[in-house]
Amino acid sequence: MNLHAIYHEPKSRYSYAADSFTLHIRLRAAAGDIQGIKLVAADPFSRFPDHNNSHTFDAESVIETEMRREYRDGLFDYWFCEIRSPTRRTRYAFVLDDGQKRLCYGSSGFFGAPARIPEDIDRFFNFPDICDEDIYRAPEWVSGTVWYQIFPDAWGSLRSITGGLSYIAGLGFNGIYLTPIFTSPSKHKYNTTDYFQIDPAFGTNEDFRELVRTAHGLGIRVMLDAVFNHAGFSHPFFQDVVEKGKDSEYFDWFHILREPVLNFETVNGNPPELGREQMKNLPYRAFAFVAHMPKWNTANPAARTYLLNIARHWAEEYGIDGWRFDVSNEVSHDFWRETRKFLKALKPDIFLLGENWDDSMPWLCGDQFDSVMNYGLLDAVTGFCGVNPNGESLDAPGFRERVTRKVLAAYPKPVQRVLFNMLDSHDTDRLITFCGGNIDAAKLAYVIQMTMGGAPSIYYGGEAGMDGMLRGNENRLCMVWDVSPEKDLRDFLKRLIALRKRHPSMREADVEFLQCEGGFLFYRKRAETETLLVAVNRDHKSRSVELPASPGGYTDAMTGEAVTGGHITLPGYGFALLLH
Amino acid sequence: MNLHAIYHEPKSRYSYAADSFTLHIRLRAAAGDIQGIKLVAADPFSRFPDHNNSHTFDAESVIETEMRREYRDGLFDYWFCEIRSPTRRTRYAFVLDDGQKRLCYGSSGFFGAPARIPEDIDRFFNFPDICDEDIYRAPEWVSGTVWYQIFPDAWGSLRSITGGLSYIAGLGFNGIYLTPIFTSPSKHKYNTTDYFQIDPAFGTNEDFRELVRTAHGLGIRVMLDAVFNHAGFSHPFFQDVVEKGKDSEYFDWFHILREPVLNFETVNGNPPELGREQMKNLPYRAFAFVAHMPKWNTANPAARTYLLNIARHWAEEYGIDGWRFDVSNEVSHDFWRETRKFLKALKPDIFLLGENWDDSMPWLCGDQFDSVMNYGLLDAVTGFCGVNPNGESLDAPGFRERVTRKVLAAYPKPVQRVLFNMLDSHDTDRLITFCGGNIDAAKLAYVIQMTMGGAPSIYYGGEAGMDGMLRGNENRLCMVWDVSPEKDLRDFLKRLIALRKRHPSMREADVEFLQCEGGFLFYRKRAETETLLVAVNRDHKSRSVELPASPGGYTDAMTGEAVTGGHITLPGYGFALLLH
Repeated sequence: MNLHAIYHEPKSRYSYAADSFTLHIRLRAAAGDIQGIKLVAADPFSRFPDHNNSHTFDAESVIETEMRREYRDGLFDYWFCEIRSPTRRTRYAFVLDDGQKRLCYGSSGFFGAPARIPEDIDRFFNFPDICDEDIYRAPEWVSGTVWYQIFPDAWGSLRSITGGLSYIAGLGFNGIYLTPIFTSPSKHKYNTTDYFQIDPAFGTNEDFRELVRTAHGLGIRVMLDAVFNHAGFSHPFFQDVVEKGKDSEYFDWFHILREPVLNFETVNGNPPELGREQMKNLPYRAFAFVAHMPKWNTANPAARTYLLNIARHWAEEYGIDGWRFDVSNEVSHDFWRETRKFLKALKPDIFLLGENWDDSMPWLCGDQFDSVMNYGLLDAVTGFCGVNPNGESLDAPGFRERVTRKVLAAYPKPVQRVLFNMLDSHDTDRLITFCGGNIDAAKLAYVIQMTMGGAPSIYYGGEAGMDGMLRGNENRLCMVWDVSPEKDLRDFLKRLIALRKRHPSMREADVEFLQCEGGFLFYRKRAETETLLVAVNRDHKSRSVELPASPGGYTDAMTGEAVTGGHITLPGYGFALLLH
Repeated sequence: MNLHAIYHEPKSRYSYAADSFTLHIRLRAAAGDIQGIKLVAADPFSRFPDHNNSHTFDAESVIETEMRREYRDGLFDYWFCEIRSPTRRTRYAFVLDDGQKRLCYGSSGFFGAPARIPEDIDRFFNFPDICDEDIYRAPEWVSGTVWYQIFPDAWGSLRSITGGLSYIAGLGFNGIYLTPIFTSPSKHKYNTTDYFQIDPAFGTNEDFRELVRTAHGLGIRVMLDAVFNHAGFSHPFFQDVVEKGKDSEYFDWFHILREPVLNFETVNGNPPELGREQMKNLPYRAFAFVAHMPKWNTANPAARTYLLNIARHWAEEYGIDGWRFDVSNEVSHDFWRETRKFLKALKPDIFLLGENWDDSMPWLCGDQFDSVMNYGLLDAVTGFCGVNPNGESLDAPGFRERVTRKVLAAYPKPVQRVLFNMLDSHDTDRLITFCGGNIDAAKLAYVIQMTMGGAPSIYYGGEAGMDGMLRGNENRLCMVWDVSPEKDLRDFLKRLIALRKRHPSMREADVEFLQCEGGFLFYRKRAETETLLVAVNRDHKSRSVELPASPGGYTDAMTGEAVTGGHITLPGYGFALLLH
């Protein structure tokens, strides 16, 4: 048995409460090493008086559950089981069987099987109590949402976005995410001057109120971008600090490292292009080394109150449904905890999304965000269908490995159901660019995206075949309305979105990989009432696919036609969604 | 290279901020597998304009540090390094060398060495920003504290404890921890009737005020026991619920599972001895299945306010220095977070100690407790010097393995400096009982305890050679003042405590194991100004110990005598503390 590979940790991605009485337990082991795992669990306090005036352990309280091997990446298998804990207190150990010997694994390491209760129970792992306040809970509506991300500058104005909402709703989207819209001198508006004012270039606050009203009337939720890591250079509070230095009441609202606050002359009130040494020695902390973006000091209570009030304002006064938090990993956990408490108290159903690019478990334990932008999935899908942001191309096993390690085995299942699943954004190349211009490959990417748990997001114009690199902001160009027919992905996406809404199997978090070989990806999604097979052929050559036996046959979800016989043939860059 | 064994995770015991500009980084690998590890780190935003109107990565910002192998347990080596992060933003990867090949390890797994910056930086692990609010910080005074734990019933009254304070101070203790003292019908008083009143059996509130005043006058800090997991059955709020059911304003302050609230007849107002089925079907949640101890519902804001006000009351009105939180692992993280915020705001130097018996990282990330009771150390030391609570006897390698896995490699170093290091308590057998009555073995246990990082705690009477089992509460008997000379450990402990206060090397968290063999334990502790060798011979036979060369020789800390020559001889159950 490969003991080095075995890993478990209570209160982590490996062990968490799914609800008040349910624990999800995972164990990592070397790929292929273990034949079977039994989880043995009990409330350690289940000792009761017996007939001999002594106390004996209550055998009825002992739970034994077979775990199932759920995922495999290059090195590891990930085993899973769900257990009920009526008293909410659980000690548990794993009984590992590699076909040759059996060993128990608990908090103090390995010990001989079987796991005896109560003799061994102090060696078990402990999930001491499922406390309601600590359980991760996200708004129900998110897992049913399909987002449409808009870079407002590309649409001209809020009014034109409002005008486009029926188009957006018509494609099936029921959520929009707008990158920043508050007053700011830049196009991207990530350097805010006034958090309470819509940028005049985009319109008025009333225009925004109308946008939300129209969106809600069409069943579309609205999410805005909260840039709380940093202000804009022109923000009056920062300007007050520039002017007054230590005498400013806002001095401690930022991270001023030394005075004078500026080591450069402004040009028309803005920082000029700075050189290396000036940037490295900026007298205040900023996003990256960008003088335009002085970092807020969230340790300052007054600054906190100011930022929280912004979040409150747009949620309460304008009725927005969610906040996407920019550069969220560089802002304190402490601030996000307070943000969550504050916002959920006034609007329990508000959606809180972190930008985080890396593994985000420290933010997703129930006390901070509901979700994060799922860059792990983006990596895997763009890598499989083209070249991902790291410059990698992945074959099907590589896709499986990446998505397993970064998503499926990385996050609790309730988190996976609400991940923000974009394949591109204003911060990446566009999907079609990742796919080298190959529209058919992009279609396969959308098929995978729409059959993963979470809430898919399409970046504006993706449905119209827009391409463009991050470099030079070519990914932020004007929305294209007229497209050549061969580039028109609209109908395709519209159909996929409609299917996703109709079929719970497409939305489930669990993925059962049936075959991963070269450019061929074949997986199963199960819901209570239906099962879906997803076959994706990212090769030029056609491929024959053997189908698992199904007494009632299959239905092709895209065409509605019955599929009879034990196999199908996928053309090059073809796919199939088969229901039964 | 054993890839299965390699483990790292940002924002965990493997990676944490020691201060605003310092990261501690650990990596786990298979024991003996790796020859050397280099950490490569940089601020990922260090790209600046260059002469070609392009941007290049600033080579100056790249840090390369050799890690050192710090600990080894049965399966793993634990490598460590500390790095400075001037901008507080750090991406890092490990370059592993097993003597045959070199590999890089980052957030997306393994990749080929060398780690190229910036090309590979997106594959690195990320510690996005060291935010001041999130840094773990404990009160400075704790690491210099030696605790004396008192079970008040064994001392008779608060006045007798106050009378004993000069005795306690005389031995060198500078902290006392009292198990509960508030009104309660039991001897142990863990079922509280009135949290604002000293139990009449122990005295009055004024007696307690006098106790704190006297203690502080002697330089002794005072820590009380906060039983916030559950109330006592007789608590008036619970009685109100018993009487009025759903009509009680306190109904939701507890976890009432069904009505009627009682499924038994009380006897003189108290629950009787209950049978198995009654206990299992208790109509309210309780500590374990103990009807005397109804569990507080900390999800209820009013109940929270009540409990927090208790904590405030004794800290503000009576000036106590710390709270030990009973059954802390079964109370919500959310409640502890609020408790910390609340108490640290009104008394920044207050010490917050959790009872937690298991691995406690989820409580020790800076947002909840300062420290926990170090049952891992208790396990290791009592196992080495006798039989531990799990019934295990450990040889020296077993001790090293246990203390490495449960303490040294388990917690951040700043946490280790304030762990509550008891070798027994009211919840365990007494140390001498663990040692099978062998006083010499108990002395060795104290030697180890006093040379570990953290704050040692002696359970009352331990200094007087008291023994006693947990079973039958024989560990909670009356304080013994007169003891036979051969059982008198007082002078011994007094000398050890005095040495510990004088010598920073004894208080340092890091332990360098030089030799672990049979019953022989030999380790080094380094401080800035001195180095300490600790040799412990837990065997009947004497043993010759070869000393590392030291130009100036060594001083025996216990005797003050110079030690010349390259070796010493330890008698059976002998030890040496050698300074140089």
